[in-house]
Amino acid sequence: MRKILVIGSGKSSSYLIKYLLDKSNEEDLLIIVGDINFTHAKKLIGDHENAQAILLDVFNKASRQDAIKNADIVVSMLPARFHIEVAKDCITFNKNMVTASYISPEMQMLDKAAKDKGLIFMNEIGVDPGIDHMSAMQVIDRIRNNGGTMILFESFTGGLVAPENDNNLWNYKFTWNPRNVVVAGQGGGAAKFLQEGKYKYISYNRLFRRTEFLEVDGYGRFEAYANRDSLKYQSVYGLDNVKTLYRGTMRRVGYSRAWNVFVQLGMTDDSYTIDDSENMSYRDFVNAFLPYSPTDSVELKFRHALKIDQDDVVWDKFLELDIFSKTKMVELKKATPAQILTKILMDSWTLDEADKDMIVMYHKFGYELDGKKHQIDATMVTLGDDQVYTAMAKTVGLPVAIATLAILNEKITTPGVQMPIHKEVYEPILKELEDFGIVFSEKEVPYLGYNPLHV
Amino acid sequence: MRKILVIGSGKSSSYLIKYLLDKSNEEDLLIIVGDINFTHAKKLIGDHENAQAILLDVFNKASRQDAIKNADIVVSMLPARFHIEVAKDCITFNKNMVTASYISPEMQMLDKAAKDKGLIFMNEIGVDPGIDHMSAMQVIDRIRNNGGTMILFESFTGGLVAPENDNNLWNYKFTWNPRNVVVAGQGGGAAKFLQEGKYKYISYNRLFRRTEFLEVDGYGRFEAYANRDSLKYQSVYGLDNVKTLYRGTMRRVGYSRAWNVFVQLGMTDDSYTIDDSENMSYRDFVNAFLPYSPTDSVELKFRHALKIDQDDVVWDKFLELDIFSKTKMVELKKATPAQILTKILMDSWTLDEADKDMIVMYHKFGYELDGKKHQIDATMVTLGDDQVYTAMAKTVGLPVAIATLAILNEKITTPGVQMPIHKEVYEPILKELEDFGIVFSEKEVPYLGYNPLHV
Repeated sequence: MRKILVIGSGKSSSYLIKYLLDKSNEEDLLIIVGDINFTHAKKLIGDHENAQAILLDVFNKASRQDAIKNADIVVSMLPARFHIEVAKDCITFNKNMVTASYISPEMQMLDKAAKDKGLIFMNEIGVDPGIDHMSAMQVIDRIRNNGGTMILFESFTGGLVAPENDNNLWNYKFTWNPRNVVVAGQGGGAAKFLQEGKYKYISYNRLFRRTEFLEVDGYGRFEAYANRDSLKYQSVYGLDNVKTLYRGTMRRVGYSRAWNVFVQLGMTDDSYTIDDSENMSYRDFVNAFLPYSPTDSVELKFRHALKIDQDDVVWDKFLELDIFSKTKMVELKKATPAQILTKILMDSWTLDEADKDMIVMYHKFGYELDGKKHQIDATMVTLGDDQVYTAMAKTVGLPVAIATLAILNEKITTPGVQMPIHKEVYEPILKELEDFGIVFSEKEVPYLGYNPLHV
Repeated sequence: MRKILVIGSGKSSSYLIKYLLDKSNEEDLLIIVGDINFTHAKKLIGDHENAQAILLDVFNKASRQDAIKNADIVVSMLPARFHIEVAKDCITFNKNMVTASYISPEMQMLDKAAKDKGLIFMNEIGVDPGIDHMSAMQVIDRIRNNGGTMILFESFTGGLVAPENDNNLWNYKFTWNPRNVVVAGQGGGAAKFLQEGKYKYISYNRLFRRTEFLEVDGYGRFEAYANRDSLKYQSVYGLDNVKTLYRGTMRRVGYSRAWNVFVQLGMTDDSYTIDDSENMSYRDFVNAFLPYSPTDSVELKFRHALKIDQDDVVWDKFLELDIFSKTKMVELKKATPAQILTKILMDSWTLDEADKDMIVMYHKFGYELDGKKHQIDATMVTLGDDQVYTAMAKTVGLPVAIATLAILNEKITTPGVQMPIHKEVYEPILKELEDFGIVFSEKEVPYLGYNPLHV
């Protein structure tokens, strides 16, 4: 049997392991799931005959290397910062490797060693990054092969709650790491992108006020705010001459305007701790960002500071979160504003047992062909099955799993540290993803650029 | 003759050197001014018989140590980060030292060595820090000696243009390092202070919208925004039990509301560089922070983004700065937004040849005595004479000079790394500053705390 070592049995490993187990008989596979939490690994594989759970502490060199040595290919589903030791061992023991994470500078440095040994280190093959790369490159390559010239590329992804369970005023629940949602958009510098040939910069202060709307057939309207790194893949995608390049994160319309209130007050700041946070009520926390008053309520000070009318729908969003509660306590020691806000939001935004999640992706491809401008919009929506087999786990895990098997079966053969931007890789994977309902729907639309009103 | 070595002949050394030279005959002083710019040092001393200019490169150990060895006391007017090597030499060669800078951790570490050798390292004896410490401690000590208990301390300082030359819509000109003005309030975390027993936090986003007004007799109304470090001197001043502690920076009313527009757009950001900044017009620079439009003017996009009505006084402030100019060019390579904004502002806010500057300070002391609450407000305004003998140079240089002579004459005798918070130091210095017109005017006012409307 051919042994696939999957390191990490976290949220996004469920579909990955299911796919491999479903193929294990016909493909003659043994799936070894290693995790520091043995019980968790065991739970994911059930009592499948072609699976084995092992206790694997990635910081224990001997146990890590034993497991890697013993495998035919290694999949690392660890948090991104832990991949590098695994990758070095894969070089040492001549193993191919697959991850869903961004290529770190350290990982990139292994490129030559991997190529010298003929090893494939496939990265960024989850959903975002992953399916975004593959689905974008498929259309971009097609446009180019038809003689078109790319002039605009915009790409948006969102992890949201499925419409049937979308029952709060923010139209949002946490389907992934809540902390990342709270600190999204922060860090040195501004969000930078290209709009009609000009570099544009959006400060964090303005990020959630500079959204754009997106309509997805059958799912209604979304909004998107800019990612910090819109230009990251410009060269990789071969888009050095496009006029517009923009990548963003999707939310339901109205989320960003309300979220901006937290940004303005400084409640998303993760860079300092609040005094005596442990003994604060939610109301005390909010009040710490507002001026003292012997008489005025926290509610009125909040509305006044942010100029929120009492009949503004934004106001109800804050009431729904119960942020003015005198009885709900923060109970976190030396917590940052972002940590406290995360806790408050988790009260309201944690998925219920029966809730399903949703991944939405939206690409816009603008191009010139025979002197005329055209645009293709491509959208993809995937819903989760339940809280284990989520849309997130499906869209992250399936491409990883399909790529892993393709490498094992020598369908993917180009060595080196890479991401799935070449036809050899994306074509068969996107094809197979369709069997799982991960399908992009394309339509030709008039080229809009940034003159949607044609004024 | 007793030799005083003054290292650095920058902006704030003029009054310092003038004071010492004026006293040089009666006090038998030789003033040696060392600077890497010999011509500048020479210019400041003119052809005074008791003065000598020397070329001093503080990074050249031999020349630095020769100069220090030869002196009876050393005054360092260098930028704060350069004091430490001078200070170490002062330990080695047993010299007292005076600076107007904040005590750095490295400087603080020399405290024991200074005490062991009986040396006085007097720091923070300029204006802010300096006169603020002394004038505050004088009143605080008096209140305590009378049996009062401090409950509130607020302190504000501003470097502004003198009223007679206050002729732009911002009521502001650069009287000190422009860069520090542009990046003011930035850096990790929020501005933190104490208000009626509660810690309050103001994010940079809100800093210029949370001002308070201050009225100075004869000078009209000012506003103040919070410093980042209001609690810095809480223990040093013995104010551990006060309910309100707030330190701020003074501007004329209306400055902050307009400045906030730059903050919101991200134009004060110093953490990344703008592409092709060299070839941008001022208009291009502003436009980089606004969405693309094929038709709308930069002016309208700017007003719309910040919700500025055309008849709002704020709008005229931006027109006055000519930030929408198509012809004025940035001409700075790889510049940060803050650097570009600094350049634009320097066009409008540089002092004219005949302009005078102004230092304003405002303290509020709230205290309880015999079960009743009281408040003393103390204000100080100093105007500059001209562009060499500025209010800034006067208020920074004179306390340094007076302290230097007092140490030389053994009027100040307590050794160690210190700031001027003890009566031995502040009493004679404040007394002598009065001869130079640096006078605090005090008045008793009803205790207001944070209930100014008595609601």
